[in-house]
Amino acid sequence: MEIFERSLEESIETFKKLLNENRMTRFRTEYLALHNYEQSKIFANLEKEDREKIYQYLSPSELADVFDLLESQDETIDVYFDEMSHPYAATVLGEMYADNAVDVLNNLKDRDRVNIYMNLMPAENAREISSLINYLDETAGAIMTTEFISVQEESTLGAAYHRLREQAIKAETIYYVYVVDENNRLVGVISLRDLIINDEDKLIHDVMNTRVISVQVNDNQEEVAKMVQDYDLLALPVVGFDRELLGVITVDDVLDVMQDEADSDYSGLAAVDVRETHDTPLSAARSRLPWLVTLLFLGMGTATLISRYDALIAEASVLSAFVTLITGTAGNAGTQSLAVAVRKLTNKYDDDNFFSSIMFELITGAITGLIVGITVMLIVLVWKQNLVLGAVIGIAMMAAIIVANLAGSFIPKIMDRLGFDPAVASGPFISTLSDLTSVFIYFSIAQLFLSAII
Amino acid sequence: MEIFERSLEESIETFKKLLNENRMTRFRTEYLALHNYEQSKIFANLEKEDREKIYQYLSPSELADVFDLLESQDETIDVYFDEMSHPYAATVLGEMYADNAVDVLNNLKDRDRVNIYMNLMPAENAREISSLINYLDETAGAIMTTEFISVQEESTLGAAYHRLREQAIKAETIYYVYVVDENNRLVGVISLRDLIINDEDKLIHDVMNTRVISVQVNDNQEEVAKMVQDYDLLALPVVGFDRELLGVITVDDVLDVMQDEADSDYSGLAAVDVRETHDTPLSAARSRLPWLVTLLFLGMGTATLISRYDALIAEASVLSAFVTLITGTAGNAGTQSLAVAVRKLTNKYDDDNFFSSIMFELITGAITGLIVGITVMLIVLVWKQNLVLGAVIGIAMMAAIIVANLAGSFIPKIMDRLGFDPAVASGPFISTLSDLTSVFIYFSIAQLFLSAII
Repeated sequence: MEIFERSLEESIETFKKLLNENRMTRFRTEYLALHNYEQSKIFANLEKEDREKIYQYLSPSELADVFDLLESQDETIDVYFDEMSHPYAATVLGEMYADNAVDVLNNLKDRDRVNIYMNLMPAENAREISSLINYLDETAGAIMTTEFISVQEESTLGAAYHRLREQAIKAETIYYVYVVDENNRLVGVISLRDLIINDEDKLIHDVMNTRVISVQVNDNQEEVAKMVQDYDLLALPVVGFDRELLGVITVDDVLDVMQDEADSDYSGLAAVDVRETHDTPLSAARSRLPWLVTLLFLGMGTATLISRYDALIAEASVLSAFVTLITGTAGNAGTQSLAVAVRKLTNKYDDDNFFSSIMFELITGAITGLIVGITVMLIVLVWKQNLVLGAVIGIAMMAAIIVANLAGSFIPKIMDRLGFDPAVASGPFISTLSDLTSVFIYFSIAQLFLSAII
Repeated sequence: MEIFERSLEESIETFKKLLNENRMTRFRTEYLALHNYEQSKIFANLEKEDREKIYQYLSPSELADVFDLLESQDETIDVYFDEMSHPYAATVLGEMYADNAVDVLNNLKDRDRVNIYMNLMPAENAREISSLINYLDETAGAIMTTEFISVQEESTLGAAYHRLREQAIKAETIYYVYVVDENNRLVGVISLRDLIINDEDKLIHDVMNTRVISVQVNDNQEEVAKMVQDYDLLALPVVGFDRELLGVITVDDVLDVMQDEADSDYSGLAAVDVRETHDTPLSAARSRLPWLVTLLFLGMGTATLISRYDALIAEASVLSAFVTLITGTAGNAGTQSLAVAVRKLTNKYDDDNFFSSIMFELITGAITGLIVGITVMLIVLVWKQNLVLGAVIGIAMMAAIIVANLAGSFIPKIMDRLGFDPAVASGPFISTLSDLTSVFIYFSIAQLFLSAII
C-alpha cells in the first residue's frame, strides 16, 4: 500500500525544511501535488511556526481543501483557526464544505469567534452555514451538506447536464441530481449515470425516478447510515416536514458515522470511552474512574451479602474456593448474552417480539447452564470426592448462568424501550450485577445442603 | 423515514396474493417499481412456492439486480439457487456484479454446483468470476470487482467519455476512469467530475492525476476500508505486484467491510460471535459454550488457588467477603484497558512504541488503583472498624488493578506482534485471567498481616 512516496516522517522533515528556508514556490509545488488527505496528515504534524508560514503560502481555498480532510472533531482545529487572522480564517471556513465548516464552528471553545467568522465570510457561505448550524448533534441535519445540485422537473436532460457542469466544482456530490417542484419539494432523482446514458432532449420528468429514498432532517445518524448501507447509495437527500429538499448526506460522512457508532458500541461494552485520546495517564485515569467507582459500590453489595454468610463459610470453608468460579462464569455468560442483545437492537434486526426473544435467551441459558453445571459438578466430584458439594456447585452454576443470561438480554431491551441507547449497558456492569445474584444463589443452595457438605 | 410506501408486512402480503392468483403483469409492474433493496427484502420473506413463481416471472437479469442487494453471506442464498434450474441460476450469477457472484459461489455448500454454473454461464462472465474466485477471504482481491472502466493515456477526454457512456450500464462504478499503459499498468485516474468539467479535445495524459491511491491485491480488507475512509474515495483501484490494474473496490463494499469488522471487534470483546444468527437456542448455546467452558477451566485455576488458602480463610473468614470485590473490580479495569489497547491497534493509530505505551498503562493503572484502593480502604474501615483489614484490601485492590491494566494492554499488543488479530482477546478472558492474579495478590498480602486482621 503506497500512501506516501516517502514515509510520512521523511515528508514532514522535507516540508519543514522548505518552510524554514522560506522556499515558497518549491513548497507550493510539492505540497499541492499531494492528496488532500496527505496534506492534512502533514499539516497536523507541523509546529506552530511552520503552520504560520503555511497561512502565508497557501490561499484560503487551498487550505480549505486540506481542512476538509482533517478530523473536524479534533480539538486542535480550534488552535489552528486561532493562529490565523480573522479574515483569513473566515475565508477558509467559507471555502470548506458547509457541513465540515459547521463541525469546526460547533467545536470552537470561544463562542464569540463563531459570530466574528460568520460576519467576515461571504454572505452566501454564511447563509449556508447558518442554515446547518442549529441541527441537533447526531441527526441527519447535522451531517448533511447544502452544496448539492437540484433542477426543476420541466427542464431537459441537456439543461440539467449543463447546470451540473457549472456546479461540479463546488458541489460536494455530483452523482445525483435532485428534482424539485416549484415549492422546492423533492419529487424525483436522476443519477449522473442516467443523465449520461439518456438522450439530452428528453425531459427530466420522463426519466427521473420518482421513488426517491430520503430521510427526515431529524432522523438519527445511525438510521441514515443503515439506509445508505442497505440501499448502496452514494448520497441520500434530506427533507423537511413538508418534503422540501434541505440537504444531502454523502457516503464519506456515512463512513465516519459508522466508525463513530462502532467505536461508541465498543466503548459501551467495555465501560470506557475508546474514542477519547489522552495525553497523560492522569486524564486517562479520570475518564475510567467514574465507571470503576460506580461498579465498586455495586460490588460492595456482593461483599455485604457474602459477609452475611460468614457463619456458613466458617463451617464449610471449602465453599469459598468456588465463589469466584461461579460469579466469573455467570458474568461471562451474561456478557455474551448482552453483546448479542445489544447488537440485535442497534442493527435493528431485532424481531421486536419482546417475550419470545427473552424466552429464547432463557432456553439458551438453560442449555449452556446445564452443560457448564454438569462439567463443573464432575470436576468438583473428582477433585473433592464430595458428590453433594459437586451437585451444589453445579446447580448453583446453572441457576447463576440462567439469571445472568436473562439479565444480559433483558436490561438492554428495557433500556431501548425506555428510549436509552442499549449499547450503554456494559459488560462490566452486567458482570458486577450478576456477581450479586450468583452469590445469593450459591450460598442459598449451599445452606440447604450444609450438613451433607461438611 | 419512508422506505416502503406500505409497511413491509403489507407489501409482502400484497405480492404473495398477486403470485398466488398468477397475476404476472401486475406483479411485474409493482415489484419492478420498487428499489432493488426493497425487492430483496420482500424476496427474502416469501415462501418457497412464491419464489418458484418469481423465477418464472422475472428474467435472470431482473433477479440478478435483486440478488446484488441480498446479503450474499446469507446461508439461505444457497437454498434459492438450488430452487432454480441450473441454466437460470447460472444466468442470474452471470448477470450479477462479479464480486457478489463470487461471494455466492464461495458460500455454496455443494461445491459441484460451482463448476456446473461456471460452465453454463456466458464465457465472458465465467472469465471475470474465475479471475476473482481464488483470492483469499478478507483481502482486497476478494472484495474487488472487475467491472470498471479503463482507458489508455493517449486517448482524448471525448473518447474516454464515449467509452464511459457505452459501459455505464454494466460497470459497477463509473465515477472514476482509470488510465493504464500498454502493459495494463495503472498510471493515472480521472474522476467523472474532471471529465465533465474539462474540454473534450484534451488528452487524458494532460488531465489525469498520476498520483493514484491504490491497494495491492492481497492487502487486508480492513486497511482498504481505512484508506477509503481517510481519502474520502468512492472507489479504490486494486493492483498486482507489477502495478497491473486488476480490479476496483467500491464504497458500498467498504461499508459492508466496516460493518463486518465492527461486528467482529465487538464479538471479540464479548467472547461470542454476534454475527451468527441462530434459529434455535440449541445452536446459540453451541456457539457460546466453547468460550465458556475454556474460561471455566481457567477459572478452576483460581478455585484451586483459593482452596490452598483454606486455613487462612478458616482463621479469618472475613477475608472471603472481599474476594469477588477485588477480582470483579480488577476485571473491570482490565477490560477497560483491553478495549483501549485493541481499538488503538485495530485503528492503526497505535504510536507503536511498545514500552512507552505499556508504561502509560502502568501509570494509569497506578492512579486508578490508588484511588479505588483508598476508596475501598475507607469503606472497609468504616464498615468493619478494622484499619489493617482496610489497608490489606486497599493495597490488594491497587496491586490487582495495576496487574489487570498491564495484562489488558500487554496481551493484545503481544498478539498483534505475533500476527494474530488483537481483537480476539476478550473481556471475559482478561477478567478470568485477572481473577487468578488478584486472588494470589490478595491472599499473599492478607497472610502477611494475618495476626493483625483477626
